[in-house]
Amino acid sequence: MLRFESDYGEGAHPRILELLASSNLEQTPGYGEDHYCEEARSLIRKACDAPEADVHFLVGGTQANFVVIEASLKPWQGVLCADNGHINVHETGAVEATGHKVLPLPARDGKIAAEQIRSACAAHYADDSFEHMVQPGMVYLSSPTEFGTLYTKAELQAIRQACSECGLFLFVDGARMGYGLMSEANDMTLADYAQLCDAFTIGGTKVGALFGEAVILTSPALKKDFRYLMKQRGAMLAKGRLLGVQFLALFQDDLYFRIADKADRLAMRLRRAFLERGWSLLYPSFTNQQFPVMPDEVLKRLSADYTFSFWQKIDDTHTAVRFCTSWATTEGAVNRLVADLEK
Amino acid sequence: MLRFESDYGEGAHPRILELLASSNLEQTPGYGEDHYCEEARSLIRKACDAPEADVHFLVGGTQANFVVIEASLKPWQGVLCADNGHINVHETGAVEATGHKVLPLPARDGKIAAEQIRSACAAHYADDSFEHMVQPGMVYLSSPTEFGTLYTKAELQAIRQACSECGLFLFVDGARMGYGLMSEANDMTLADYAQLCDAFTIGGTKVGALFGEAVILTSPALKKDFRYLMKQRGAMLAKGRLLGVQFLALFQDDLYFRIADKADRLAMRLRRAFLERGWSLLYPSFTNQQFPVMPDEVLKRLSADYTFSFWQKIDDTHTAVRFCTSWATTEGAVNRLVADLEK
Amino acid sequence: MLRFESDYGEGAHPRILELLASSNLEQTPGYGEDHYCEEARSLIRKACDAPEADVHFLVGGTQANFVVIEASLKPWQGVLCADNGHINVHETGAVEATGHKVLPLPARDGKIAAEQIRSACAAHYADDSFEHMVQPGMVYLSSPTEFGTLYTKAELQAIRQACSECGLFLFVDGARMGYGLMSEANDMTLADYAQLCDAFTIGGTKVGALFGEAVILTSPALKKDFRYLMKQRGAMLAKGRLLGVQFLALFQDDLYFRIADKADRLAMRLRRAFLERGWSLLYPSFTNQQFPVMPDEVLKRLSADYTFSFWQKIDDTHTAVRFCTSWATTEGAVNRLVADLEK
Amino acid sequence: MLRFESDYGEGAHPRILELLASSNLEQTPGYGEDHYCEEARSLIRKACDAPEADVHFLVGGTQANFVVIEASLKPWQGVLCADNGHINVHETGAVEATGHKVLPLPARDGKIAAEQIRSACAAHYADDSFEHMVQPGMVYLSSPTEFGTLYTKAELQAIRQACSECGLFLFVDGARMGYGLMSEANDMTLADYAQLCDAFTIGGTKVGALFGEAVILTSPALKKDFRYLMKQRGAMLAKGRLLGVQFLALFQDDLYFRIADKADRLAMRLRRAFLERGWSLLYPSFTNQQFPVMPDEVLKRLSADYTFSFWQKIDDTHTAVRFCTSWATTEGAVNRLVADLEK
Repeated sequence: MLRFESDYGEGAHPRILELLASSNLEQTPGYGEDHYCEEARSLIRKACDAPEADVHFLVGGTQANFVVIEASLKPWQGVLCADNGHINVHETGAVEATGHKVLPLPARDGKIAAEQIRSACAAHYADDSFEHMVQPGMVYLSSPTEFGTLYTKAELQAIRQACSECGLFLFVDGARMGYGLMSEANDMTLADYAQLCDAFTIGGTKVGALFGEAVILTSPALKKDFRYLMKQRGAMLAKGRLLGVQFLALFQDDLYFRIADKADRLAMRLRRAFLERGWSLLYPSFTNQQFPVMPDEVLKRLSADYTFSFWQKIDDTHTAVRFCTSWATTEGAVNRLVADLEK
Repeated sequence: MLRFESDYGEGAHPRILELLASSNLEQTPGYGEDHYCEEARSLIRKACDAPEADVHFLVGGTQANFVVIEASLKPWQGVLCADNGHINVHETGAVEATGHKVLPLPARDGKIAAEQIRSACAAHYADDSFEHMVQPGMVYLSSPTEFGTLYTKAELQAIRQACSECGLFLFVDGARMGYGLMSEANDMTLADYAQLCDAFTIGGTKVGALFGEAVILTSPALKKDFRYLMKQRGAMLAKGRLLGVQFLALFQDDLYFRIADKADRLAMRLRRAFLERGWSLLYPSFTNQQFPVMPDEVLKRLSADYTFSFWQKIDDTHTAVRFCTSWATTEGAVNRLVADLEK
Repeated sequence: MLRFESDYGEGAHPRILELLASSNLEQTPGYGEDHYCEEARSLIRKACDAPEADVHFLVGGTQANFVVIEASLKPWQGVLCADNGHINVHETGAVEATGHKVLPLPARDGKIAAEQIRSACAAHYADDSFEHMVQPGMVYLSSPTEFGTLYTKAELQAIRQACSECGLFLFVDGARMGYGLMSEANDMTLADYAQLCDAFTIGGTKVGALFGEAVILTSPALKKDFRYLMKQRGAMLAKGRLLGVQFLALFQDDLYFRIADKADRLAMRLRRAFLERGWSLLYPSFTNQQFPVMPDEVLKRLSADYTFSFWQKIDDTHTAVRFCTSWATTEGAVNRLVADLEK
Repeated sequence: MLRFESDYGEGAHPRILELLASSNLEQTPGYGEDHYCEEARSLIRKACDAPEADVHFLVGGTQANFVVIEASLKPWQGVLCADNGHINVHETGAVEATGHKVLPLPARDGKIAAEQIRSACAAHYADDSFEHMVQPGMVYLSSPTEFGTLYTKAELQAIRQACSECGLFLFVDGARMGYGLMSEANDMTLADYAQLCDAFTIGGTKVGALFGEAVILTSPALKKDFRYLMKQRGAMLAKGRLLGVQFLALFQDDLYFRIADKADRLAMRLRRAFLERGWSLLYPSFTNQQFPVMPDEVLKRLSADYTFSFWQKIDDTHTAVRFCTSWATTEGAVNRLVADLEK
């Protein structure tokens, strides 16, 4: 059985395991104050061209999202996001559990636009009883989105502009950041993210690490005392160096970018194979997640040898599904799948 | 200036002021443990034909809503409601501030249906990653709704049935309960509410009182230790007898029902006047709130002598507005308005 | 039965009831935006010599405390207070329910000292793992305290100094503010409170009103968007004018001060009577609460005609109890009690 | 430099790294639903003689504590614990951040007694205004405690009895469970913990794992829907098998017990060395943490070659410090330290 249903089915890139093993018996301080974390932070700041940024390593994506959002908002503020956004749908109300409402906006291909943000804020303050409504305080985006799509630099610049006008923080969830950066459709750099966002994450869990999300804080307003909140919310790993070691390995020799690039290229091969068979794609994704609309009979045949995710029923005989590649996907697996698609 | 823009512009029915004055220097225990509260509870239990119900008096509607909801839900549960529901829109995220997500369903004329509830629960448990989503734990309805519409007994029975099947509590926000009960379109009684709901409120603020909402808890699961939560959330009035006195006055000699009935009759006169002029109504309301769609030029003329609430722009020359009657509205004021409408 | 067990057993001063009655049918905007609230705010600002202060009217003391504290603290901060402080003991964990730890300091006669605050902060930051501990963010005092004692101007100046050095907000709970201001032991004015505190309350519930606490915010950092939080926490009364009317009545013609003064004078008569009988006082209180240590046989005799609160057992034959006077206590009642004490 | 200042300075036992490496490229489902987690759960249930227990794997100790406590308490309940308890002191208010007050009891050598629990509950319900105070809902213990001491079976049976009488859940934080179980002073088994507690943890982070705490839920009341709360609080690891793999390695061939045993024996050597020098011990610890009171001049000399933790100043020339052994401590390191102590 070859598995394409998610991008976190395996462990970690071998380089990470090697460095974990070779550093294993070294004694270090805990809680992210070791030299591995320091070196990893330094590499990430450099990759982001953001020497002043604060970099923290958290264990998981849900955790990173709600800690950043809680650190940013006043008790009466909420966070604007796409209605399909991960925080609105798939984190069991983690943001609400910190007391803040998620304010969903209708998304197109998983994305929201600057104009929607501006309108939501304008509508808020235009209402006579605005104090009776949750005040927008932040915009949360994921890029790549949950549907594999990307924000362009122009789109993110417009959103940044809207946020600045409206007094909102801008936070980008980069759980799949690597696959976004290496996409053929991408025109953003880490430095662009650092310049346009108040906070963003660089995901490790889905891009080669055992676990771990790097949180990059560029806004001075968010930096102070962030580690207190990490500790309070169970997001400060005792043996923090495990995170430092992993991000060190990922950001040495461009490993992070190279493994993401490979996954994207394999995804594009799948994409072409779907299109060549005449199957449409549910979203215009040029990253590691592909959403073909396929005949049910083909899906049935494939399911004997491959795993993939059900997405939605399209009509009586067609279904949209998700195929993911990842840093761990092999050329051989993709070759075999493509061959089977062409049958 | 005659004011029709809300139903809480005045103080209290004179009977309430009289009883507050006559009891003023009596010394009583605090926190709702006085004899006025006991007598009022007893009258309300009788009116609801619910001798086993617990009755608590809270100061305001937002407070009553979030305290009942918080008392009912597990930390990972949310509350289903109409997308226009008061808790979703106009309480500054009070429910989320207690850690619980509001789960909005698309409403029709402010109402949701049993089938939507059943579908939402079925969809939740059908999802592979249901533990990653907020679990529905309660249904919140307002009746009358924010748009003046009412749930029929058949609709509420169906919703009760859906809630029981899905393991959900049912909570009805009766901020305007009196105007609902006395509506010509109503077929529910307080006893029906007590029988079908796990919790509901009988609003005083908008129906003759200075302030106060009676919370009626019929589900044994919700009764235990409710007063602790009231105290914790600032919802236990020190001089609790003020609430007892008011609800005692309202439930003696059917005062609550008589003053609501008058407001409804005056609203129906306005309703007929709007229809006779050929103006449509935005919602099929037979309670004290009316939402005519009127020519802007008429609205402009009226605004010199009357207040009403802007609701929404319909087209270039028409606007939907809200006119409210209340226990305090006089026949004279309505006569004058009707005369001016007919001009 | 004459009741001395609390200072909130009656309704309101008759002047308040009069003004509530005379304004009853006037139509006003809701939520504290009416002219009564505006006038009351203006009188309070003047009484505090604080033209820039924001004044809000909340319904109750627990509510006022947790809303002010929540508005002030970052998620990882806590509030320093006396270990017997109301927020630590008698508000069912209302502050913790907003996510913040109460950080109790050992109190002497209900009071804490500047040096304790300084030490607590120094100890926090001296600890290697300070990020693993709750960061002090505010100091909460009550004055008069729960034991009737008062902070002197010198003490409060020293506390202000400590707070400024340590980066802490200073909040004084003035639930019994009137009885403190009019005490023969007092050297503080409302203007002093406004100058030394970032936030403080002037209690109405225990000093003549039906209910209501005025929150005075002097720190610019606390002013912005405070009304959002009031609404979210159920602390924004729909018919807000009821609070405006009450505080207007209290601050016209110095009513608030005159009725508190009378209660204090009656308390001093009781105090002298206790001392003359040779009974010690548990706390050095010169306000409306007195805590005599009395022989059990005397208490037993008195309990046939008077109510008072049990405080603590002192020895096999003596008990400390609490006698309260209030704005509603009559000279006659005190005369009779004093006569009975002297028997 | 030889480090004795904590028991989490290294990575993981080599067996764990081996199993992580050998399973690395295997594709498994996420979120703890893989076969490694299942096997580890099965071994733990067997070790606890608790076939009906639910076993969950969380990343860290703070996280495990607040998730279990939040899952157990009603909003108005708090958790009784020793005043030095980890949740009261060193978790940045994580429990309060979920809305619950920590209710500290004065501890002796880090422990509380059944009688204190009974008294606290009796005092709560004896108070006239008990609804104004936080209701005790759970008892939290750590064993070994933060001071290395242990609860005996008799003590825990008495505490269980008190909890059952008072309607409290009993939760034991076993972050250092292994060192407790293998202590020469221990008379408890995992089966005893499973029988006496409603919930307890078996710590991996400090006993051989990279990270991870096993949460064992024996009370049916706590089992339902626990995974929702894990997800909501960021405590459900995406690649959950990493936790399964680690606990599988630890519970195969008694590895967990063997490595803890070795650490305890080395600690006892240190203990004897301290006593032989005539230095007293601050707490009667027979586990891996030792707290000698030593002359400052000796500490100064040792600090050139060894790390240890400052604990508290005893007098002008003596200081209590903490030396920890762990699964990773070598005989050689202890030999050298003992030799240097004897100089």
